Amino acid sequence: MKIVVLGATGLVGRAVAATLGPRHEVVRVSRSSAVRADLADPASLEALFAEPVDAVVCCAANVPLRPLAELTGEQVLDDLRGKLLGQVALARLAAERLPDGGSVTLTGGTFTEPLPGSGLGALVNAGLEGFVRSAAAELTRGLRINVVSPGWISETLEAMGEDGARGTPVAVVAEAYRALVEGDANGATVIPR
Amino acid sequence: MKIVVLGATGLVGRAVAATLGPRHEVVRVSRSSAVRADLADPASLEALFAEPVDAVVCCAANVPLRPLAELTGEQVLDDLRGKLLGQVALARLAAERLPDGGSVTLTGGTFTEPLPGSGLGALVNAGLEGFVRSAAAELTRGLRINVVSPGWISETLEAMGEDGARGTPVAVVAEAYRALVEGDANGATVIPR
Repeated sequence: MKIVVLGATGLVGRAVAATLGPRHEVVRVSRSSAVRADLADPASLEALFAEPVDAVVCCAANVPLRPLAELTGEQVLDDLRGKLLGQVALARLAAERLPDGGSVTLTGGTFTEPLPGSGLGALVNAGLEGFVRSAAAELTRGLRINVVSPGWISETLEAMGEDGARGTPVAVVAEAYRALVEGDANGATVIPR
Repeated sequence: MKIVVLGATGLVGRAVAATLGPRHEVVRVSRSSAVRADLADPASLEALFAEPVDAVVCCAANVPLRPLAELTGEQVLDDLRGKLLGQVALARLAAERLPDGGSVTLTGGTFTEPLPGSGLGALVNAGLEGFVRSAAAELTRGLRINVVSPGWISETLEAMGEDGARGTPVAVVAEAYRALVEGDANGATVIPR
């Protein structure tokens, strides 16, 4: 398959591209790559479909921690733009532009413990899971949509000076994306562990 | 308690106000009431807290059905404004303005079967549940936040000429709100049935 990996320069994106690389043609995309796309700028996502691709994997997804008191209207909109609205836009484009049997795999997230300021992240992650479940039922032509919802990643914890064993190794996370791209799940949320 | 019911002219809001009425002082608020507030206009929500209240119940919440193909960036933002962003804004205001031990009860929703065009609604409902779970952990002063997620309501089905027995009577739904307002749950999603 020809597979676009969006967010290919991040920790997860690099691992996903490396895992898919041996068996597929991987197009690595980031805000600074030759094919440039930015989740926070939905119009830029069109570029991902300029050439025919069989699958899109989105690993570019971030929501800031923000205390409840800072959730003012415009701030919330801005925070939702990338991970939530960008991935919804990507799903819509994928449904229109992918060939029969194509797939789109999004990135959610799982808070393994309550984290102060995680209200918005929890909203986005849960919202994406609900959206994927529902959008899957609407897809035609054998198209599929799924979401990987990693908790803490071992390598991230280690970089923060914490115990990596509390998290999931990035290679295990990457394997979850590969299984969704190569498998036949539709509407699934996968929590790698 | 003095309890504001937002969306008090709708089917659910009327039932909630009627259920709370005998034991509490209920302030009925809608887009056209004396105290006017509109979820789609977060600034208008300030008015709910102009006088001291012990609890806020939000029954005003609607997300249109929209096929995946119509989920363009600006359309999505507009659709999220009321039920999602409005209720997040209400939660933030409530955390700041309610007295110790106060509560805010939001309205989500449950799709009992996949419904074409429900992607955005599923996103909003699941997102609210995630948000409430996480925001609850951040509340101080004995404040509480919960969400009621009704499926089809019998009276709505009957008005559509369908079998009301497939849904939940609005009185049962209203009871779920009352139990959350008078009880001590925090961070809960309740599906009345």
